[in-house]
Amino acid sequence: MTILIHFIIILFSLLCFTFTSAHIIPKFPSSVVSPDLQQTSVSVPNGLYRTKFFTQILDHFNYNPQSYQTFQQRYLINDTYWGGAKKKAPIFVYTGNEGDIEWFTLNTGFMFEKAPYFNALLVFIEHRYYGKSIPFGGNDEVANRNSSTLGYMSSTQALADYATLIIDLKKNLSAIDSPVVVFGGSYGGMLAAWFRLKYPHVAIGALASSAPILQFLDLVSPYTFTNIVTQDYKSESENCYKVIKESWKEIEDTANAPGGIEQLHKSFKICKNNTITADALKGWLQTALMYTAMTDYPTPTNFLTPLPAYPVKKMCEAIDSISTAGNESLTKMYAVANIFYNYTGTVTCFDFGNDSDDSIDQGGWNWQSCTEMIMPLGGNNEESIFPAHKWELEDTLSYCKHEYHIVPRPHWITTEFGGQDIGRVLKRFGSNIIFFNGLRDPWSGGGVLKNISKSLIAIVATEGAHHVDLRFSTKGDPKWLKNVRKQEVKIIESWISQYYQDLLLQG
Amino acid sequence: MTILIHFIIILFSLLCFTFTSAHIIPKFPSSVVSPDLQQTSVSVPNGLYRTKFFTQILDHFNYNPQSYQTFQQRYLINDTYWGGAKKKAPIFVYTGNEGDIEWFTLNTGFMFEKAPYFNALLVFIEHRYYGKSIPFGGNDEVANRNSSTLGYMSSTQALADYATLIIDLKKNLSAIDSPVVVFGGSYGGMLAAWFRLKYPHVAIGALASSAPILQFLDLVSPYTFTNIVTQDYKSESENCYKVIKESWKEIEDTANAPGGIEQLHKSFKICKNNTITADALKGWLQTALMYTAMTDYPTPTNFLTPLPAYPVKKMCEAIDSISTAGNESLTKMYAVANIFYNYTGTVTCFDFGNDSDDSIDQGGWNWQSCTEMIMPLGGNNEESIFPAHKWELEDTLSYCKHEYHIVPRPHWITTEFGGQDIGRVLKRFGSNIIFFNGLRDPWSGGGVLKNISKSLIAIVATEGAHHVDLRFSTKGDPKWLKNVRKQEVKIIESWISQYYQDLLLQG
Repeated sequence: MTILIHFIIILFSLLCFTFTSAHIIPKFPSSVVSPDLQQTSVSVPNGLYRTKFFTQILDHFNYNPQSYQTFQQRYLINDTYWGGAKKKAPIFVYTGNEGDIEWFTLNTGFMFEKAPYFNALLVFIEHRYYGKSIPFGGNDEVANRNSSTLGYMSSTQALADYATLIIDLKKNLSAIDSPVVVFGGSYGGMLAAWFRLKYPHVAIGALASSAPILQFLDLVSPYTFTNIVTQDYKSESENCYKVIKESWKEIEDTANAPGGIEQLHKSFKICKNNTITADALKGWLQTALMYTAMTDYPTPTNFLTPLPAYPVKKMCEAIDSISTAGNESLTKMYAVANIFYNYTGTVTCFDFGNDSDDSIDQGGWNWQSCTEMIMPLGGNNEESIFPAHKWELEDTLSYCKHEYHIVPRPHWITTEFGGQDIGRVLKRFGSNIIFFNGLRDPWSGGGVLKNISKSLIAIVATEGAHHVDLRFSTKGDPKWLKNVRKQEVKIIESWISQYYQDLLLQG
Repeated sequence: MTILIHFIIILFSLLCFTFTSAHIIPKFPSSVVSPDLQQTSVSVPNGLYRTKFFTQILDHFNYNPQSYQTFQQRYLINDTYWGGAKKKAPIFVYTGNEGDIEWFTLNTGFMFEKAPYFNALLVFIEHRYYGKSIPFGGNDEVANRNSSTLGYMSSTQALADYATLIIDLKKNLSAIDSPVVVFGGSYGGMLAAWFRLKYPHVAIGALASSAPILQFLDLVSPYTFTNIVTQDYKSESENCYKVIKESWKEIEDTANAPGGIEQLHKSFKICKNNTITADALKGWLQTALMYTAMTDYPTPTNFLTPLPAYPVKKMCEAIDSISTAGNESLTKMYAVANIFYNYTGTVTCFDFGNDSDDSIDQGGWNWQSCTEMIMPLGGNNEESIFPAHKWELEDTLSYCKHEYHIVPRPHWITTEFGGQDIGRVLKRFGSNIIFFNGLRDPWSGGGVLKNISKSLIAIVATEGAHHVDLRFSTKGDPKWLKNVRKQEVKIIESWISQYYQDLLLQG
């Protein structure tokens, strides 16, 4: 229970921040969970993997004395199903994202379930500066102190970490000829796709699930993300959309009325020791709506928080089932919150906490959002289910200046990894990437949704949510999801088979 | 004349070092010319290009405060033949190597000669830390002070510089849709090939001339380079090979005999104020032999130094024409030296100078050779035309420790850019690179000599030397060289035409 409350606090503090201040720094779902929380929340089935550490260099692209510092990078390994080096059996590598690698591992059942079929070795590598892979002697405080120590956290350094670790691992296992396939979801999916593009000599292919590699300046509208959230709720019921859309003014008006804050406290069962504002409450609710859209899975899950199957539908059903006679906006929105924050039904009151500023600093993603991951999103047009809001690069710049005394490099990601006219560029270059996207997922707006070539394939699931394909399968999985996974297996199989053929030809 | 002598000193000091000490740090030809020398030696035809500067960031892959420092990166531009942005006319970019960009520009006539045909804009970008593109306020002394300031010189940073500059330039010219083709010779050719592989969204193709991208650990034998040199002389005459091979002992014996140093002084017309040793003299001669092999062009040239057409043949003819009755080893080797160091016939005595240690530090390539460009070459087996010598990584490590207090990263280049099983890897990935190699060129041993796929093409000229295809054409060019250039034009034309078709399809 403590964990859930802690989780809520962090979600709240981040999202509150996101939606109520001028500094819009949207996050991946995973990023809102602090490493500490994840470490306590992760319950690892016995023998699922062994934990190892690799001595990694601090800066791959520089040769000054500081760059030679090393840190211990964590990776998890499971060789239960591996066919072994002699058989050149494949190695499946998860390119870790912005958080504790154990958490991503436990949410990537697909790799465990398919390992026996492929006789694959499983490796999950933690991203630098997250979990237990902290530079500067593993000292989180030092590593996160300021831009001098945080400066080494970047996507390019992370990719080079993965390349270095994988090459070393293969050498140590005498498995030079074992093909490597990389997997990743969300930011991890972006890394997987980029890894295949930048290190084709290390990985023969990549499954990039819900990887918004196009969610950057000049590539997508900053309204795309919340437009998809809006559409998700609208698709359930027009009334649901309207109620939510109109609730913000109701909250505002209530807060401004005499005794209104007390009423909000009561309506939303906020713990008594909390001091809330309309903005904080709105942020808290918007978090719930947004993350529910992202994790609108077809079966009950416990990814960000315990949720029922089709939680968006459940929220709208809750709204629609309450009499519309009086103005029941607050009651309806409480019902929405209760599904996201209290699906287990054990919360007696919601504790927003007051340590929001501290929590923000905990997240490495906040740093990444202020350096290179400048994703234009969070803008709301007039149709949005959220209050209208214009996304401005200027806001990010000024926030990051204030927070880290740093100037973001908003064009770096597209300079380094491309994105502009991706179809035209990659039609003639590159191969073996699956881009999975579920259209219920607001991140799909920044994803690759069309096939680029014969082997750069977009799998689009109309009913899918955020990297649903990578999750452990369940009995309740719908047919389309089973088919997606089958298709992915088939494609990966073709890469591996082609690799073995090429190896034979080479002699 | 001063320039030639200065040049000789540097060549000598570097090569002497290379061949007579245990610390083998072979250089590209271009690297042995110090930036200062190049600036004085370059005579630029009027209107060949305009010089511009671009404000470049110091470290693309890090976000600490130091990384935000900027420097002025020089580039040369010629728009005489450009069809313009409206016509989406192509942009040809030379990815500068380890030296003054003006020097490379003047030795890349191919681009100037083909620009009218393609209506191409020409851009030549200088590599950071060379020429006038010096970080730390352009202060050469500060930039080269130690590993803290030199640390930012790396191939990955250079490639990111090129991407950043090209994208910015295209934007400023409103030429977003103009296709970019990159060109480079030697290290510049490696950069061109790597640029296409890493930045396919910036360049549609690359002509990588004499680019030894495989001249790294575990990929080629350290004997390959000098084996090719050996073969070059042997192919002219068995006697030539034997005379040279046996001369080293003769020089050694002479030096050890009473009055021998004086005799060597006299035989080789060394200036009187010089103090020479047998090792120094041998290094000086080996330099001449090696660089002559590299620049064994079919027409008279002035690349590293003025040379006749087919200079290897000329050297062997000089050797073979001298009576073999007595032991005329020294006379013959003097004749060899005189072709390389005094083809213009204006030198009255050869000045080795005594500032060899200083000269070594001047070269940025020396730093690159101690960080990532760990090229196993310079080993001589029993058959070698040079004295037998084993190449040991250990020697490089200890030299670099002594010179820069630095530990080389000998596996970095292959980690970052690949190379192992390049045919198998790139058969299924990447496109649009021409790898030109001339087999007379000792660097061809580290080149791509076989077609990899339909658009990753190896052009191999049996009689070719170091990036001869990129040179200005002359009336005396042999047919094979004309054909090579025709073939290159045809291939580049096909890339551009395909690009325009793709652009049309895209709408």
